[in-house]
Amino acid sequence: MDIVVENIYLLVIVTLISVLQNAFFANKVEQECKAPNAHNTSAFERVSCANRNCMDVYPTFLAVMWCAGLCLNQAPAAFAGIIYIVVRHKYFVGYMGQTSQSTPGFLFGKRILSFLFLMCVVGIFNYLLVRYYGSNYREYVDIITKASSALLLLP
Amino acid sequence: MDIVVENIYLLVIVTLISVLQNAFFANKVEQECKAPNAHNTSAFERVSCANRNCMDVYPTFLAVMWCAGLCLNQAPAAFAGIIYIVVRHKYFVGYMGQTSQSTPGFLFGKRILSFLFLMCVVGIFNYLLVRYYGSNYREYVDIITKASSALLLLP
Amino acid sequence: MDIVVENIYLLVIVTLISVLQNAFFANKVEQECKAPNAHNTSAFERVSCANRNCMDVYPTFLAVMWCAGLCLNQAPAAFAGIIYIVVRHKYFVGYMGQTSQSTPGFLFGKRILSFLFLMCVVGIFNYLLVRYYGSNYREYVDIITKASSALLLLP
Repeated sequence: MDIVVENIYLLVIVTLISVLQNAFFANKVEQECKAPNAHNTSAFERVSCANRNCMDVYPTFLAVMWCAGLCLNQAPAAFAGIIYIVVRHKYFVGYMGQTSQSTPGFLFGKRILSFLFLMCVVGIFNYLLVRYYGSNYREYVDIITKASSALLLLP
Repeated sequence: MDIVVENIYLLVIVTLISVLQNAFFANKVEQECKAPNAHNTSAFERVSCANRNCMDVYPTFLAVMWCAGLCLNQAPAAFAGIIYIVVRHKYFVGYMGQTSQSTPGFLFGKRILSFLFLMCVVGIFNYLLVRYYGSNYREYVDIITKASSALLLLP
Repeated sequence: MDIVVENIYLLVIVTLISVLQNAFFANKVEQECKAPNAHNTSAFERVSCANRNCMDVYPTFLAVMWCAGLCLNQAPAAFAGIIYIVVRHKYFVGYMGQTSQSTPGFLFGKRILSFLFLMCVVGIFNYLLVRYYGSNYREYVDIITKASSALLLLP
């Protein structure tokens, strides 16, 4: 059992942080919902909309992060997950502060999700290469992945 | 392959039950949606809102339950999952029966999700202790977890 | 690690395709959202509603597909997943083209989800039989599952 945990513990930690963030978002909605005269104000609508946009993408994010972590390497996947959580926090706060005319778009964190998606593709491709040709580039791939994950820090 | 199934089969069973419940919720929405003059009545709005609130939390619930089951022990995690399903059913039924002025809050099952979250944290913490210090408290942790999961039955 | 990947790589590929589809859906919503005078037209409402209906079922679909793939056999599960993605695409396109009076229902892909659900149940049942009675019908079950997955191609 500990062999399993060894390969996923970073992913579990990032998942737990994202769950905490979900709870924070849901609490914000609950708070606005219970405020007097809340249902008519735009504050409730904005926070509810921001929460729904975040929740819509959440299963996709979890799926891509776990697949990337299982297929290739958990460290860069967890790192990208952390950055995604930061970006999502900025998006949520930005959504609440804006007037409804200038809301940020529906999508966010495209670069990070693309990076995780690419990690999955590389991992699957590497597995198929090993299986059918016997050539193993995993070491090089790991180094390249870890180095390129630092690029996500660029604004 | 059976070694894998051995460690997750209780979690799979709970997941299947929750999927059945999702199908029940979706059927209720479908039913109200197709009822004559449905789109204007508050019944459709209520059932649709209850369904959406449940679905918003569903990925979070699945993620926490599976992490808790994988990191620590599947039996208490599956037990907490069953209780969560019961609580969700009560929430859904309660939402449909209420007038819109007195809907139950946006959140539900906080105690159970917190318990599962705590299980994950304890599991990760135990793994790190084993890895860096070599001390293994898993047996004690398992006993404590199983005992404390009974506390979830308290109303 | 490659032993893990060997048992899930088809599931990962299907998950990646579904993620691409999610990105396509989200892009459609973003596009309609940014179109001039978008928020009042019914086009935005329809595409947003179609996207939300698809996203509501997405975690359920992922959970059932992965459970079926882990408990029984990944090939038929991934095959059913591919068909589900095709059905979902048809649903989304159909939703956008219709007037709001004749939208397709809230649910779609019931047959495929039921098939995956049944696969899970059979897998769990087979595991319990092996554990408590020692009789292993997995080979027969695998053949029957693969053959019956072809039935999903029927319109």
